[in-house]
Amino acid sequence: MFYPQLDAKAAKTATKIATGINAVPGAASGKVVFTAAEAEEMAELNEKVLLVRKETSPEDVGGMHAAIGILTATGGKTSHAAVVARGWGKCCVVGCEALNINYETKTMTVGGNVVVKQGDYLTLDGNTGDVYLGQLALQLPEQPPAYQVIMKYCDELRTLKVRTNADTPYDADNAIKMGAEGIGLCRTEHMFFDTEERRLAMQEMIVAENVETRKAALAKLLPFQQADFEGIFKAMNNKPVTIRLIDPPLHEFTPKDDEGINKLSQVTGISPEKIKHRCEQLHESNPMLGHRGCRLCITYPEILDMQVTAIIKAAISCAKAGIKVFPEIMIPLTIDKKELSIQVDQARALADGLIKAAKAKVKYMIGTMIEIPRAALLADQIAEVAEFFSFGTNDLTQMTLGLSRDDAGRFLPVYVANEQDGGKGIFKADPFQSLDQDGVGMLVKMGIEKGRSTNPNLKVGICGEHGGESASVKFCHKAGMNYVSCSPYRVPIARLAAAQAAIADGKGKTAKKARKGK
Amino acid sequence: MFYPQLDAKAAKTATKIATGINAVPGAASGKVVFTAAEAEEMAELNEKVLLVRKETSPEDVGGMHAAIGILTATGGKTSHAAVVARGWGKCCVVGCEALNINYETKTMTVGGNVVVKQGDYLTLDGNTGDVYLGQLALQLPEQPPAYQVIMKYCDELRTLKVRTNADTPYDADNAIKMGAEGIGLCRTEHMFFDTEERRLAMQEMIVAENVETRKAALAKLLPFQQADFEGIFKAMNNKPVTIRLIDPPLHEFTPKDDEGINKLSQVTGISPEKIKHRCEQLHESNPMLGHRGCRLCITYPEILDMQVTAIIKAAISCAKAGIKVFPEIMIPLTIDKKELSIQVDQARALADGLIKAAKAKVKYMIGTMIEIPRAALLADQIAEVAEFFSFGTNDLTQMTLGLSRDDAGRFLPVYVANEQDGGKGIFKADPFQSLDQDGVGMLVKMGIEKGRSTNPNLKVGICGEHGGESASVKFCHKAGMNYVSCSPYRVPIARLAAAQAAIADGKGKTAKKARKGK
Repeated sequence: MFYPQLDAKAAKTATKIATGINAVPGAASGKVVFTAAEAEEMAELNEKVLLVRKETSPEDVGGMHAAIGILTATGGKTSHAAVVARGWGKCCVVGCEALNINYETKTMTVGGNVVVKQGDYLTLDGNTGDVYLGQLALQLPEQPPAYQVIMKYCDELRTLKVRTNADTPYDADNAIKMGAEGIGLCRTEHMFFDTEERRLAMQEMIVAENVETRKAALAKLLPFQQADFEGIFKAMNNKPVTIRLIDPPLHEFTPKDDEGINKLSQVTGISPEKIKHRCEQLHESNPMLGHRGCRLCITYPEILDMQVTAIIKAAISCAKAGIKVFPEIMIPLTIDKKELSIQVDQARALADGLIKAAKAKVKYMIGTMIEIPRAALLADQIAEVAEFFSFGTNDLTQMTLGLSRDDAGRFLPVYVANEQDGGKGIFKADPFQSLDQDGVGMLVKMGIEKGRSTNPNLKVGICGEHGGESASVKFCHKAGMNYVSCSPYRVPIARLAAAQAAIADGKGKTAKKARKGK
Repeated sequence: MFYPQLDAKAAKTATKIATGINAVPGAASGKVVFTAAEAEEMAELNEKVLLVRKETSPEDVGGMHAAIGILTATGGKTSHAAVVARGWGKCCVVGCEALNINYETKTMTVGGNVVVKQGDYLTLDGNTGDVYLGQLALQLPEQPPAYQVIMKYCDELRTLKVRTNADTPYDADNAIKMGAEGIGLCRTEHMFFDTEERRLAMQEMIVAENVETRKAALAKLLPFQQADFEGIFKAMNNKPVTIRLIDPPLHEFTPKDDEGINKLSQVTGISPEKIKHRCEQLHESNPMLGHRGCRLCITYPEILDMQVTAIIKAAISCAKAGIKVFPEIMIPLTIDKKELSIQVDQARALADGLIKAAKAKVKYMIGTMIEIPRAALLADQIAEVAEFFSFGTNDLTQMTLGLSRDDAGRFLPVYVANEQDGGKGIFKADPFQSLDQDGVGMLVKMGIEKGRSTNPNLKVGICGEHGGESASVKFCHKAGMNYVSCSPYRVPIARLAAAQAAIADGKGKTAKKARKGK
């Protein structure tokens, strides 16, 4: 009911090349890749990719996650690909036996005369199992009237707000249609490498040999990011937008081949050898626990300056155009009060100066993600300098359980599957899909209680993938959060779960009235 | 006073090739390597290496840690190399300007006519700054009588036991001389790849395509490991020995080059391509959070069987020879009660069977490391199936702070240094050297309290590097631990700190008497 569907007209005139088993509904259109690694690489460059494999295995999980759809030549509705994709609600067609995949030449042939090369567009219809050549138009389905009625009831009952994770005006628009009341997580990563121009400027920043060159490179990125934020603020008129400052380690932005290195060398005048050396230096043994998040802005404060300037200038220009903006600047990966306060002070001084100079009326908030165990443990201290907390339960799960989501495919299934299914039944559910309420949940509750003990007005939300999973949303309600934030298509699930949680504890806004038969 | 010293006679007849600045005392003898990466690789193969660099930088920290001594051509007593090595108490000579290092040819020349190649032995004297050709004899210094008197007082005062981290009978002997009362951490890693024979058997186990082949490969390792344990039990007669089951991810054991792959192919009959593929499959994005620790024994229970058999058979044979053995089997990286109980049940059934069959009297304990935040949070549940806890504060620090020790060199100095020194003064000390009492310490205290709430007899210790750092040892005393465990040379520091802590809280065994002037 919520997944994008194939435009019926477009499908009629399109070339259907094969039909497999319809494992997960919805439709997806993207460029074909044949390996999980390439799926991840291209997705990082913001390409929409379809992962095509003979079959998938736990090693492919990263690439499956990065792809917008999955197509396999073998397997049935309980194959690895089908089960994993279903967990994510990701369009998936399996057992498409007509496909003859050649990993070496990165091509597949279908029925002898159709050849599909890596990078070609295909479109999958997960409802029927059909596979089409080319990039077909997709559309969001109309919801039946009963859906609107139920959702209206849910919204009256629930006390938990539901926001969305969205990085573009397009996603934001979509999410509003799904009922999102704001953005809980706007990642700014793609604003650094969406186009070649931005990517080069970011790379110039990374190889810069002194602060001045670094600032000059960042200055090139400023107008792009400002325009991005303006687009999002416009789409979210009158609703809050939480913007996370730069999060990934710098090596994710560096050139990966000689061509890229040479180009960067031309732009910067730095020798290719030096650039290569600098890129190698950035390699990390455990990037998840490395130089990323706000650690980047502690060592390179000029990145924070650029991003805060872009956000506040965008807010000022929108406000002057009559758009109501509520930016919430979110600092990721905090582990210490002092670490946060250094950045809050820096951001506030800059933002207040810009607002005053522009004689504009813009209110903003500054808060932090709580995604490292230490931050939850010391939440009382951290809340003294934060206006809001957003629990990043993806990373918090990884660190609390000492479990890398990218690597866990090798053993996590054994932990989750029951004895009957050959597993050990250690976990009730995959902790990356449904929040580990015993362990991670304890830290979340502790973080909220401690945070509010020193800052009673602290606004609290969640922006991990758990924010759209029913049991986890109910946990968030019970833990006393103000909002959950999830991907656009999961917003209705979150609205429903939040209403169910409110009814269950009898504390819903209008729960009593509702039960009396209002 | 505790570091190994150059044998004075040996030094007289040796060839001194240069003299640098004596940055950290002690002496070290090992094979020369010129890159941090090679230092790590060779150390993994249990080679003693000296890292020789023009200068060191934060990227080299992993290799510096792996080396037993550090020699640089530039820098003074406050250079990166000197400061980092001093923190570890690692022999270090800096500013040795006579060295002419060529990284490309992996050689260095000294004074025109001496050439030292990678792999050649050198010996450093950190007391004088002298550099000698060859592998000179080292010896432990005699302690002055006053030292013995003070240590005796300390031992009377302290309530905290002091054990050592030791993997070989040699280390164990050393540690007993330093006053260790048992082994708190015997790592079994090197028992898997100390010699080519063992390495090959381990690799056979890794590439095995079914349980039977895996068991056959493990059977080859059993007698080696049993003999290793017998040696350690003999050295530790009458003292407890905590043995940690396999911990590192399997890719640390795989062949790294074609020669190794071909050899393994010959032994197993598996094609080199397949072996290569299997090794590639083992690659992890974040190995620290990957398939390691007891996760290995959950997916490959036969590894646990082999190790428990080796430990118990060694204990039986020692007991029959009149040696008093107290083996404590320690399961690493636990995150869940059920995960632990599966392994405890398996180990206990096997051990009890062996002891009964041998009609021997051997008592053993089974416990776990607490090194992942979730284990500390759920310590009450976990203690129901564990007889002891050992806090692995190295990993617990990495996960609680979301900080990889190998990568943190790039930004941690900025967090630790004061504003005057160009840093941000966020941490009072390097959390890998002195325990982060606010964050990690909170989890440790929580883990002890919760653990003893369900198991009042729970024995608790620490086996991270913090167990030999004065402030951390005092914290362990206050937190109510039974023992600390540290590297042999730090045992006296721990004994002193434990006594100081006992005096400070007036609860020392004989603290009151001592203060009354006994």
